[in-house]
Amino acid sequence: MSPETSKIKNYLQNLQDRICTFVSEEEGQSSFSEDLWQHPEGGGGRTRLLADGKHIEKAGVNFSHIFGQRLPSAATLKRPDLTDRHFQAMGVSVVIHPRNPFAPTSHCNVRFILAEKDDAPALWWFGGGFDLTPYYGFQADCQHWHTLAKAACDPFGHDVYTRYKEWCDRYFYLPHRQEPRGIGGLFFDDLNEWDFETCFAFMQSVGNHYINAYHPILARRKQHPYGERERDFQCYRRGRYVEFNLLYDRGTLFGLQSGGRTESILVSLPPQVAWKYNWQPEKGSEEAKLYEEFLVKKDWV
Amino acid sequence: MSPETSKIKNYLQNLQDRICTFVSEEEGQSSFSEDLWQHPEGGGGRTRLLADGKHIEKAGVNFSHIFGQRLPSAATLKRPDLTDRHFQAMGVSVVIHPRNPFAPTSHCNVRFILAEKDDAPALWWFGGGFDLTPYYGFQADCQHWHTLAKAACDPFGHDVYTRYKEWCDRYFYLPHRQEPRGIGGLFFDDLNEWDFETCFAFMQSVGNHYINAYHPILARRKQHPYGERERDFQCYRRGRYVEFNLLYDRGTLFGLQSGGRTESILVSLPPQVAWKYNWQPEKGSEEAKLYEEFLVKKDWV
Repeated sequence: MSPETSKIKNYLQNLQDRICTFVSEEEGQSSFSEDLWQHPEGGGGRTRLLADGKHIEKAGVNFSHIFGQRLPSAATLKRPDLTDRHFQAMGVSVVIHPRNPFAPTSHCNVRFILAEKDDAPALWWFGGGFDLTPYYGFQADCQHWHTLAKAACDPFGHDVYTRYKEWCDRYFYLPHRQEPRGIGGLFFDDLNEWDFETCFAFMQSVGNHYINAYHPILARRKQHPYGERERDFQCYRRGRYVEFNLLYDRGTLFGLQSGGRTESILVSLPPQVAWKYNWQPEKGSEEAKLYEEFLVKKDWV
Repeated sequence: MSPETSKIKNYLQNLQDRICTFVSEEEGQSSFSEDLWQHPEGGGGRTRLLADGKHIEKAGVNFSHIFGQRLPSAATLKRPDLTDRHFQAMGVSVVIHPRNPFAPTSHCNVRFILAEKDDAPALWWFGGGFDLTPYYGFQADCQHWHTLAKAACDPFGHDVYTRYKEWCDRYFYLPHRQEPRGIGGLFFDDLNEWDFETCFAFMQSVGNHYINAYHPILARRKQHPYGERERDFQCYRRGRYVEFNLLYDRGTLFGLQSGGRTESILVSLPPQVAWKYNWQPEKGSEEAKLYEEFLVKKDWV
């Protein structure tokens, strides 16, 4: 293993630990269980799950580092320079579904891919981001979330936040609903435009800022009083999360198609979900406000 | 409209009525509501829904007849003779989700497509089938279901049931779970190998036999005593239904991608669903029996 990949691996495993630590702190009662697994072509992962907690209904925090003989056609179709390369991919992937409908679901992913072949320089890139999916919107939470997203980016250039915020808006969008999945955040991929150390530093900045972005929101919303109406709406809106992940999310589809570990990939799906035919929020309600004021393209900072 | 399409349309609308009638009878309390809608390129449909009933948790019974300027690329990729043809598609699509976990979910679809252009003979074909998804298996129900499937096919040739039963097994399969969706039934597509009248008669036979196949099963299982454990398992297994429909079902994906009416397409999704990480049934339990004795390739007749 070259020194670079071991440094990245150390960072990612440490990030997984830190995320599990703050989630466990906020949960208070239940704790994470861990599954270690092997990938058929080499490498493997550790999947950590906290389920049925007092405050955390389901949290999946995955680390994986896998090796493959050849990049899948989905990856090489637009990049002929990637064909016939063996590769390794490592990353941390997080989805937190709190029980309280006033506490938003959050998602974070950071990843590194290295594609090599004999007699040619190695190719590598980073990807990742984080995004927030509220059920009941709070202006202050969304501003805090995007302020931290911007803070993660600003040291790397004045337009970085804007570019990756817009990419996030484009990516987490459900065309069949004409709705964004949530209020966005950051999304980046194929990042190698800076030198290796700067790109790696940026990935770390994204991972670190995710914790600072989500922790205070979870802390202040997890005790918010709620009833059956709010719970119903949360379960209904979680249906959109399922629709996005199964219909559009590249990581999910690529993972399932390439023989990834199904239970680790689908740990992102919410624990309880409802579909209602042609449901519409009542005019002027808090539920309508989510669609009108939060699930819209917007500058939050 | 040529005489053929009006005859098919009459049959399909009548089939929709008959299906709603037997479902309403078994439900006893709630009744169907109807939405009429228009398709942007012409035609439209009537979506009927019964939700939150005493015995029927969600039933969607759709009729649609739509017109299009050009068949989508998905349809013409392997059939260059279909390019540059305007088309009409009509069909009935049914998904019944009973409340009782001992009553299986059933699905039925029958459809007709006519693709035309000037100065060339019209091309047409039929498709459809029905399949059953039990949560707790009953040998007698499955045998009855497949006996009726076979009865629908036998007048049309000695190998018709076998061919369409096997196509159904192949189609309703979740590769990422290595599991069939249920115990199958019939699936056929591109049917034009017989003359028009025979093909149309076969489609009618499939639609008619669906009612006789499902009605008695629903009637005898809807009152079966059950508790939280069975309800939990039903909600968990319904997750597989969602996974299949959003990841693999051609009708769903084609409908969403081609700008179909989202709420009518996704009316197939179950009302309440749960995902649990890495859940396994207890050895020797009734839940394990479903996997071992029912979700396996099998000759039921």
